[in-house]
Amino acid sequence: MSRNNKPHIHNSSTVAETEYFRIERAEISFSNGERREYERLFSRGQDAVMVVPMLNRETVLLIREYAVGTEKYEIVLPKGSIEQGETILEAANREIMEEIGYGANKLEFIKSLTIVPGYISHRTNIVLAEDLYEKRLEPDEPEDIEIIPWRIADFKLLFERDDFTESRTIAALSIIKEILI
Amino acid sequence: MSRNNKPHIHNSSTVAETEYFRIERAEISFSNGERREYERLFSRGQDAVMVVPMLNRETVLLIREYAVGTEKYEIVLPKGSIEQGETILEAANREIMEEIGYGANKLEFIKSLTIVPGYISHRTNIVLAEDLYEKRLEPDEPEDIEIIPWRIADFKLLFERDDFTESRTIAALSIIKEILI
Repeated sequence: MSRNNKPHIHNSSTVAETEYFRIERAEISFSNGERREYERLFSRGQDAVMVVPMLNRETVLLIREYAVGTEKYEIVLPKGSIEQGETILEAANREIMEEIGYGANKLEFIKSLTIVPGYISHRTNIVLAEDLYEKRLEPDEPEDIEIIPWRIADFKLLFERDDFTESRTIAALSIIKEILI
Repeated sequence: MSRNNKPHIHNSSTVAETEYFRIERAEISFSNGERREYERLFSRGQDAVMVVPMLNRETVLLIREYAVGTEKYEIVLPKGSIEQGETILEAANREIMEEIGYGANKLEFIKSLTIVPGYISHRTNIVLAEDLYEKRLEPDEPEDIEIIPWRIADFKLLFERDDFTESRTIAALSIIKEILI
């Protein structure tokens, strides 16, 4: 079996559509002749950005906000959708102005992450933001966001907290820690 | 505003249902009086396990498999759904027998991760598997799985690969690296 023969997707059709999501059903044939049915989830709109805002060389600014999916407050990095016409770095700078009240003189794209590549195509672009300056844009959040400065060297101490569970945040911080330390 | 006053969820109703997913629409009121409409995604069945199988103290066994959502082969950790009546550790041991042909004498629950807590409730339970022995169960995968042994100290070298994007895998490896090294 050659892995150069990518599976083929047949007969895809939309089986459900809501304001935010579209679910597609498709048949996939693999190079060994196996066929399977899958469902895939597409979200409306663009991919996302997630920003790692460094207040200084050692300290990242995390936020704590209510997550409706898990019905808990969760510690995460600032994030949001890329809006029509925005670049990844423009979206990153807007998100930190809205969510933590800072802009960044230095923005660097780090890596594009997936969440559940088996059934979700959505990508989250990780951006490192450095050399911050105070600048607040009106947030679209329903309540004030709590900001949590955290030493990136103390990343490990977050693991024990049960409000620190979000995979992209943990992945992004681990990548930045490997790069910066 | 007190963060002890968790938002309230009102008027939730199912707006779409497919074989694998259910989408719910709900109105949320925050302690400051703000109200917003949200959609939440529920997958059928149980939560998942993701296993970090250590071939020895230094080497983790990763797999490379086709991801229908992103239409690419992706490097990930072995994972799957917890079946009816299984514990987390039983599911973890079954998954590595099916996907990489090993069982583990030592299984330890590490942490429960979320993917997109803002709209998905689903949790993935990370399990560290050590003291492996050869044992193969019939996999339910559509094609043979490629196994990639990787030195956990060389975690950083994976970041540059564009088939290494899955957030839970990166999060789980970073947590295990902090624990083991």
